[in-house]
Amino acid sequence: MEVMNDEFYMSLALDMAERAQGQTGINPVVGCVVVKDGAVIGLGTHLKRGTGHAEVHALNMAAGQAAGSTAYVTLEPCSHYGKTPPCSERLIAEGVARVVIACEDPNPQVAGRGVAMLREAGIEVEVGLLRERALRLNEKFIKYILTKRPFVTLKTASTLDGKIATRTGDSKWISNESARKIVHTLRHRHQGIMVGVGTVIADNPSLTTRTEVPGINPVRIIIDSGLRTPLDSAVVTDGQAPTIIIAAETADAAKEEELTAAGVQVLRCGAGPRVDLAAAMDRLGELEIGSILLEGGGTLNGAMLEQGLVDRVVLFFAPKIVGGAGAPAAFAFDGVDLMRNAVTLRGVEVEVLGDNVCISGIPELV
Amino acid sequence: MEVMNDEFYMSLALDMAERAQGQTGINPVVGCVVVKDGAVIGLGTHLKRGTGHAEVHALNMAAGQAAGSTAYVTLEPCSHYGKTPPCSERLIAEGVARVVIACEDPNPQVAGRGVAMLREAGIEVEVGLLRERALRLNEKFIKYILTKRPFVTLKTASTLDGKIATRTGDSKWISNESARKIVHTLRHRHQGIMVGVGTVIADNPSLTTRTEVPGINPVRIIIDSGLRTPLDSAVVTDGQAPTIIIAAETADAAKEEELTAAGVQVLRCGAGPRVDLAAAMDRLGELEIGSILLEGGGTLNGAMLEQGLVDRVVLFFAPKIVGGAGAPAAFAFDGVDLMRNAVTLRGVEVEVLGDNVCISGIPELV
Repeated sequence: MEVMNDEFYMSLALDMAERAQGQTGINPVVGCVVVKDGAVIGLGTHLKRGTGHAEVHALNMAAGQAAGSTAYVTLEPCSHYGKTPPCSERLIAEGVARVVIACEDPNPQVAGRGVAMLREAGIEVEVGLLRERALRLNEKFIKYILTKRPFVTLKTASTLDGKIATRTGDSKWISNESARKIVHTLRHRHQGIMVGVGTVIADNPSLTTRTEVPGINPVRIIIDSGLRTPLDSAVVTDGQAPTIIIAAETADAAKEEELTAAGVQVLRCGAGPRVDLAAAMDRLGELEIGSILLEGGGTLNGAMLEQGLVDRVVLFFAPKIVGGAGAPAAFAFDGVDLMRNAVTLRGVEVEVLGDNVCISGIPELV
Repeated sequence: MEVMNDEFYMSLALDMAERAQGQTGINPVVGCVVVKDGAVIGLGTHLKRGTGHAEVHALNMAAGQAAGSTAYVTLEPCSHYGKTPPCSERLIAEGVARVVIACEDPNPQVAGRGVAMLREAGIEVEVGLLRERALRLNEKFIKYILTKRPFVTLKTASTLDGKIATRTGDSKWISNESARKIVHTLRHRHQGIMVGVGTVIADNPSLTTRTEVPGINPVRIIIDSGLRTPLDSAVVTDGQAPTIIIAAETADAAKEEELTAAGVQVLRCGAGPRVDLAAAMDRLGELEIGSILLEGGGTLNGAMLEQGLVDRVVLFFAPKIVGGAGAPAAFAFDGVDLMRNAVTLRGVEVEVLGDNVCISGIPELV
C-alpha cells in the first residue's frame, strides 16, 4: 500500500513523464502534479517539442485555483523564453506556494536559474526528491543538451556465448517474445535507429517500431561507407520513416544521386574510405537527432564502443550456446590486453524476462 | 511470517539436507523432522555415507517418544539393507502414525518400496510435498544412481562477450567476490573438480575449496591426453586432495610412472591420441565419483557440452566487454548450423550478485 507524502505525488509525475518518452524529440520528458487542500488539482506532461510544458498543462487544468498549492515537477522549471514562455513565471503568477523538484535542469540556459527565480518570488522550493530516477529518465536529453551529440543506446540479442548468429549466419530467433517486445519499445523511445549496411544487405529490415499499440518510427540511419545500400531495400523504398545514409567521402557520387532521388538523405562523414563515426554523431546532433538505438552487427558495435560513442548498452541474453569460433560475435573489435582494461559497465541493471535476461549499464572505457 | 503447516516442517527438513550437500559422497542428502503434539521431537540429517540415515538420527533424538508422531522426510525412506538397516522398518517399529515425503527415491532398490512398506504397516503416507525442490537438491544423486556416471556441473566466469580471458590471455579477475565465493561453495558440493592440462600448465591452480569456513576439497581430475602435467605442479605435489589424471592410451608410460610415484592416480581412457571423455565419465563413476565441477577452458567445456556430458551449467557474467576475436571463449567447439539447433538451457535460474549475474540451467542438445 502506498503512503501519502511528497514521494507519492512525485512518483506519479515521474510515471507520467516516463510514458511520454519518445515523443518529445530532443526535449526532456517532464511531469507535473499540482496539489491543494489534500487533493490533486492539476496534472500535466510535456507532450511534444514546441508545445506546452508540464507545468503549464497542470496549471491550466487547475483553472486558476492554484494559489497556495504545491507543485511537484520532475525537472527544474525553465527560466528562459524558448519555444514557450518560462514556466517559473507562470508558477509565480498562479501563486503556487511550494515547488518540489526532482532534479535540476542541466541545460546551461536554466541550470539553477529556475529555482532562483522561484525562491526570489518567495516560493518554498525543494530540490532532489527521487533525483536518481529523474536523471535516469532524461539521460538522453542530458547527454544531448550538454554535448550536442546523440545519446546512443547499443542493443544486442546474443547467446550466452556472445554470438548474434551461428557459424552459418542463422540468427532467427535468438531472444524470446518478451525481449523482442522491449526492443520495439526502445525503438519508440529513440529518435534514430542505426545499423550497418551489412545488416541492410543481409536482412533487408524495415527498422520500424512494431509495438502492440501504435508507436513512433525512428529515423533510419545506415552506416554505409561505400554506399552499398540497395536501391530496392526497405529503408529506401517503404516510406515508413525518413532514412539517412552516412557514407565516406570516397563513395560513388552517382549512387548518392540515385539514393537522394529515392528520398534518402546522404551525409558524408570522414575523409578516408571509412565513415568517421564521431563526426557522424556530430552531424546527427546538428540534425537534432538526440538519441539513437544502435542495433549494429559486431563490427559497428565494436567500433562505436571502442570510440566511446556508446552511452548505454542493453544486452539481451537467450539461454543458448551455439559455439563456432567464427560465428558472428556481438562485439567485434581488437579488444583490450588486460582484464582490468575491459570496457566495464557502471550502474548495472538486470531484468529477468522468462528464460531471457537483460543486462544494461553505462560502458566506461579505461 | 511463516504459517504452521506441513510445508513449515518439510522446508526445515530440506534446509537441513541442503546444508549437508557435499559431505554425503554418492549418497543423497536427506533431512527428517519428527513432530508430535504440536512440537518438534526429533531432527535428523544424513551426514556421511555409511552412517545413519536422517530418519534414524531424528528418531534417536525423539528417544522412544515417536509413537503417533508425523515424520517429514525429504526422500522416500529406504526399504533395503544397504550400509544401514531400512529406515522404513525403523519408522514402523517406532509407531510413527504419518509420514510426509517430498519425493520418491529413484534408486531402483527403493523406487516406491519404502512407501509400500509403510502403507502396509498402516502408516498414513503422503508423497510430493515440495517435490521440485527436493528433486533439485538431489540432482547429483539421481543422475549417478540411474546412470553410474557423475553429474557434471560446468562452471564458467566470463565477460558479457563470452570471453574467459583477454586476447593476451589475462583473466585476473573477471568475476566479483560474491561470484568467487559461490564457486568455492560449489567445489565443496562436488566430489570432483575437473580441468584440462592447459589450465594446470597456465595457472598451476590448487583447485581446493577455499570457503570462509572450512570445506571439503574435491578430488582433482585433470584431462591430460599426452600426460603433460608438470611433476612440480600443485595438483601433483601439494597433498591437499587426491589427484586423478586421465590420459589417452598413447601417452608416455615413463611419465605415468613418475606421476604415479608422486601419488597421482593415472587412468587411461580412449584408444586414440585424445582422451575419450564419455569413457572417462564411466571410469570416474566406477570410482564412485558421483559429481564433478567442470572448470575447464573453452575446448574442454565445448567438448563436454557437445558430447552431452554436462548436466548443469552455472555461468557467471561480469559486466565487462573485452573484444578480441581470438580471445579465449568460454565454449570452443565447432558449433551448430542453425539457431534452432543451439544447445538450450532448460529450467533457467538467474541470480543477481551485485553487478555480476549467474545464469544456470540444464543444457539440452537438439
